[in-house]
Amino acid sequence: MTTTETRSKGAGARIEPRSFRGVLVPALTPFTADGSPDRATFVSFCAWLLDQGANGLAVFGTTSEANSLSLTERMSLLEHLVDNGIPAGTLMPGTGACSVPEAVQLTKGALAAGAGGVLVLPPFYYKNVSEDGVFAYYAEVIERVGESALRLYLYHIPQMSGVAITPPIISRLVSAYGPVIAGLKDSSGGWENTERLLREFPDLAIFPASERFLLAGLENGAAGCISATANFQVQRIRQLIETPDGDGRARLNEEAGRVRAIFEKYPLIPALKAVAAHRFGRDSWRIVRPPLRELTDAQRRELIDALGAESRAG
Amino acid sequence: MTTTETRSKGAGARIEPRSFRGVLVPALTPFTADGSPDRATFVSFCAWLLDQGANGLAVFGTTSEANSLSLTERMSLLEHLVDNGIPAGTLMPGTGACSVPEAVQLTKGALAAGAGGVLVLPPFYYKNVSEDGVFAYYAEVIERVGESALRLYLYHIPQMSGVAITPPIISRLVSAYGPVIAGLKDSSGGWENTERLLREFPDLAIFPASERFLLAGLENGAAGCISATANFQVQRIRQLIETPDGDGRARLNEEAGRVRAIFEKYPLIPALKAVAAHRFGRDSWRIVRPPLRELTDAQRRELIDALGAESRAG
Repeated sequence: MTTTETRSKGAGARIEPRSFRGVLVPALTPFTADGSPDRATFVSFCAWLLDQGANGLAVFGTTSEANSLSLTERMSLLEHLVDNGIPAGTLMPGTGACSVPEAVQLTKGALAAGAGGVLVLPPFYYKNVSEDGVFAYYAEVIERVGESALRLYLYHIPQMSGVAITPPIISRLVSAYGPVIAGLKDSSGGWENTERLLREFPDLAIFPASERFLLAGLENGAAGCISATANFQVQRIRQLIETPDGDGRARLNEEAGRVRAIFEKYPLIPALKAVAAHRFGRDSWRIVRPPLRELTDAQRRELIDALGAESRAG
Repeated sequence: MTTTETRSKGAGARIEPRSFRGVLVPALTPFTADGSPDRATFVSFCAWLLDQGANGLAVFGTTSEANSLSLTERMSLLEHLVDNGIPAGTLMPGTGACSVPEAVQLTKGALAAGAGGVLVLPPFYYKNVSEDGVFAYYAEVIERVGESALRLYLYHIPQMSGVAITPPIISRLVSAYGPVIAGLKDSSGGWENTERLLREFPDLAIFPASERFLLAGLENGAAGCISATANFQVQRIRQLIETPDGDGRARLNEEAGRVRAIFEKYPLIPALKAVAAHRFGRDSWRIVRPPLRELTDAQRRELIDALGAESRAG
């Protein structure tokens, strides 16, 4: 992954529409017992994910409970990561918000921190909005940010946001803003949409949101994946990307799929946090903000047992 | 409407769970040509609505494009209203947010400004959340605000928020927080849910979100209504509330229903703003923030003609 290009500014900036590649982790956000973000643990977790092989960190995504954080918390945590040694170029923070002024403020903050790109949700309060309205939101954010160095990744997750980022919207944005529209994370959950986007937008860096579609994605030109369960198995996913076709690769792919299937039996974010608490020996890792709730003790034991059995089998 | 009680604090505060009654207007938020809130026009519009007979102003609701405003804009606009003569006790600002810290900050700001109550959305990013998670959000907001004088109205609008405020959640909140849970705005769009809430929660101030259910509501113990189209016909709705049963009342009810039906043929918020622009002779009233879009010229002319014909017929 190279991100230096995206930070150079002005007309002479070299265009590198695929600066992010590989496995990006939508890093979990740890909280302390009083409910505030646990800044120190967040830094060490991000450093650990990079050590384990993460190509980038899509901090402040859905899995990060970004929308359960205040704007101030998001901006301050991002600065804290960079100030404490997390390379800014590896970061693709979520900077979407329902309001244009807040999306602009978050995006400017990410650029100022040196982030390699930003992952931007559509405004997600109003439903049944027009494609023209979604285009207008992104257009206004991009123009108010006013930086040709901006590399914006569209965040398509209609089952959560209620607002789809359709091919006509993407086409119109690419026509209007060229390399500023760098890519898209497809969390729609099906291969069909990803496959269509890869075919229609070969110049965008398309990231399916699950390692389940990683191999098919890579074969069809995907840039990698941005997967919630990479919080648990980033090393395996990175290995999978780097292993040439053959027996070892198929085995890794099956293992990754089995692990994902285990997590998918539970509410995903509380499950990932429960496992992080177990792995790092820190109970506060389990804390989620409302409306999410922690796993029950029984769920937690069952999940950890299932992952242990899988690991012994693997 | 009496709101003095809701502002007295401490253990000796008199409990007045039905402090808001009548027609409350989810006031439109005007913007200037550069897209920022038009503070002066907002003040004069709110004053006009009260002059026309509004019993209260549910500013920063869905119709107000509240979630398209930043937290800073919402707090500053509320202070501006109060500083410019809008009686704070008439105000029921929307203070919900996806994040607890922001809902707390907005709610504290509303209390500091002297608002008679607050209307609080559930956190609306995550979907399929548990009733326990929705309860936990409201509980945490209430406890972090920590004011027995708080009068909180739950905002049930599942078709927009994706998160329902169900009777079990309401029961649990009422048990835990007593008079702090003052009422509920039911924007579910059907009479069945409103009727059930009126029956199960006779001590709450229940507001259906449409004048269509006003008469049935009043007959069954509703506190009034909080209706988007009250931005256009608050005088008629107030008159309807105050007219005793008889011929005049049925006629007013039919007129109000016909006007509502005309608006419902269009995207509601842009339609209300187009008509405000026409009524007040100020084109900038038409401006909406993305993802909403203005009506087309043809839609605008057709809507204004239809309302004119209705008014001549009435």
